[in-house]
Amino acid sequence: MAEFDLIDRIRARAVVRDDVVLGIGDDGAVLQVPPGRQLVVATDTLNSGVHFPVDTAPADIGWKALAVNLSDLAAMGAEPAWCTLSLSLPEPDEQWLDGFLDGFGELATLHGLALVGGDTTRGPLSISVTLHGLVEPGRALRRDAAKAGDDVWVTGTLGDAAAALALLQERHTPALAMVCEAGPMLPAAAGQESAARALHEQLQARLDRPVPRVAIGRTLQGIAHAAIDLSDGLLSDLGHICAASGLGAEVDLDALPASAALRDAFQPPRRHALQAIGGDDYELCFTAPPKMAGRIETIAADAGVPITRIGRIVPGDRVRALQPDGQDWVPPRTGYTHFQD
Amino acid sequence: MAEFDLIDRIRARAVVRDDVVLGIGDDGAVLQVPPGRQLVVATDTLNSGVHFPVDTAPADIGWKALAVNLSDLAAMGAEPAWCTLSLSLPEPDEQWLDGFLDGFGELATLHGLALVGGDTTRGPLSISVTLHGLVEPGRALRRDAAKAGDDVWVTGTLGDAAAALALLQERHTPALAMVCEAGPMLPAAAGQESAARALHEQLQARLDRPVPRVAIGRTLQGIAHAAIDLSDGLLSDLGHICAASGLGAEVDLDALPASAALRDAFQPPRRHALQAIGGDDYELCFTAPPKMAGRIETIAADAGVPITRIGRIVPGDRVRALQPDGQDWVPPRTGYTHFQD
Repeated sequence: MAEFDLIDRIRARAVVRDDVVLGIGDDGAVLQVPPGRQLVVATDTLNSGVHFPVDTAPADIGWKALAVNLSDLAAMGAEPAWCTLSLSLPEPDEQWLDGFLDGFGELATLHGLALVGGDTTRGPLSISVTLHGLVEPGRALRRDAAKAGDDVWVTGTLGDAAAALALLQERHTPALAMVCEAGPMLPAAAGQESAARALHEQLQARLDRPVPRVAIGRTLQGIAHAAIDLSDGLLSDLGHICAASGLGAEVDLDALPASAALRDAFQPPRRHALQAIGGDDYELCFTAPPKMAGRIETIAADAGVPITRIGRIVPGDRVRALQPDGQDWVPPRTGYTHFQD
Repeated sequence: MAEFDLIDRIRARAVVRDDVVLGIGDDGAVLQVPPGRQLVVATDTLNSGVHFPVDTAPADIGWKALAVNLSDLAAMGAEPAWCTLSLSLPEPDEQWLDGFLDGFGELATLHGLALVGGDTTRGPLSISVTLHGLVEPGRALRRDAAKAGDDVWVTGTLGDAAAALALLQERHTPALAMVCEAGPMLPAAAGQESAARALHEQLQARLDRPVPRVAIGRTLQGIAHAAIDLSDGLLSDLGHICAASGLGAEVDLDALPASAALRDAFQPPRRHALQAIGGDDYELCFTAPPKMAGRIETIAADAGVPITRIGRIVPGDRVRALQPDGQDWVPPRTGYTHFQD
């Protein structure tokens, strides 16, 4: 592995920031945290075949490796500043690396994020990113600060990434496809192939290129009580807020926001399953007192991103998903398997 | 993968520090950098079968994953503060994890280092650590600050880890063993088995449990001009100082410090090769003006670790290893292969 060639390629494309005293190329980076700011650190690893399908385009892997970490910072209400990248590659591959850095760099540039260090090693394809952000003291959004009576909100729409993954798995797994016969699928009648393809591409883009809600996370400081980003699935992740806050939650299934593509491709109950327990959304879920509803609607309008009230924080320790008739919804046991751990 | 069980196990054993505002268990950690300090960040990944033999004990892997990063901080002259850990495991394995955390935690405790976050994922065994340290502004040791006329120094002794790896590879590779017949080997005469075993264990300990020179790195502030930690091999790593500083270096082969075990096990020219181009030493190599020799000797005496002058920085752009007769030494092409990238 020509580690130093790879590092040179990476360095040539890094964003420049004044607060980077010493960047890539030494044993460590030296960084100047501005006075009056706390440091927020998040780290996530993506492994080939576990966190993304093995045939994912390198640029999409680069984008996603950064996006999942930016999503963590967004959920903390932090402003992205610097990151390190550890890249394990089976063999040196300049073309792959250039593609990867295209996607990684595109998102880093959008957020003014400087790559300040890392290492490249030989090994099964794996990408580990550690992201550093800044936050005003005491203003970070936490999981443990929900209050009974809070509304529960989510940004964007839910279930698209899980839908794309389900379609991918069904294409490759005839047995699974049979299970899926139970629910309506993509429009497959004659003449509808192109519509089906367009639908699939819209869903796939949400799996490959999640958009971290960094700006929204920043504006939620002082408005949201608790926040988390949705990576494992809504009910599971909301459960972490509840566990940390010592409370329960009720979620209205019918209120879960769905994209037009998801509505076209999947009807309930499969759609509800994709939205409630599918993963890889990388949207924010947060709680806020009801009096903040107006300000949250303004934030949504300013950002051009829907933010939807989907339930409420209640006493107790359960996360309940409720059907329109008030009955508890029981997640189906089959249909797709979650790709990510 | 029961990610949250693993994280709970990790959290239960983390060092506690007052400057950790929010540790493991949220989307990110919140950390308070003290006023008047800059942040130093280093990251390194270890992959099974690449950076350590697949049969390495979990506790040794845990120790080493942290040690290689602490060694980077040492080379920056920084004080360790916080770290994150990304762990990919083929399957959840509590026994393995406990062993890993024993070694990791032992070294973290020695340095008052708090584990503040990370993630556990399913994948081929891989450990990625990002380490955060603190340094007084402008006092970090860099690679690009060597001056012509500086002495070149190394801490500890060189070549033990590479010797252990060579012995390991020779045991597993008959073809390599044949190559090695050229140089004297372990004492293998009748009655000497136990001596050979003791020797091997001493060398192996240097491969499995490198001791990062953190305290020495701290005291070199204001004394050393440039510094690097030795991971790829002396001549290669000193080459990075020279390239960054726009200078050359001369190294006196006979001056390279060797442990008693290495002297017993390997005679020149193999010993010289292990010391000059073998990797995994995790000692510090630094340059300093000749007038600092007395202070460096005091640091060595205080630390109880030898620090040896091995050469000098010269104009030019080559790193030359010199034999006692002043002739250039040419590294042998065979004998062992470097395990690490």
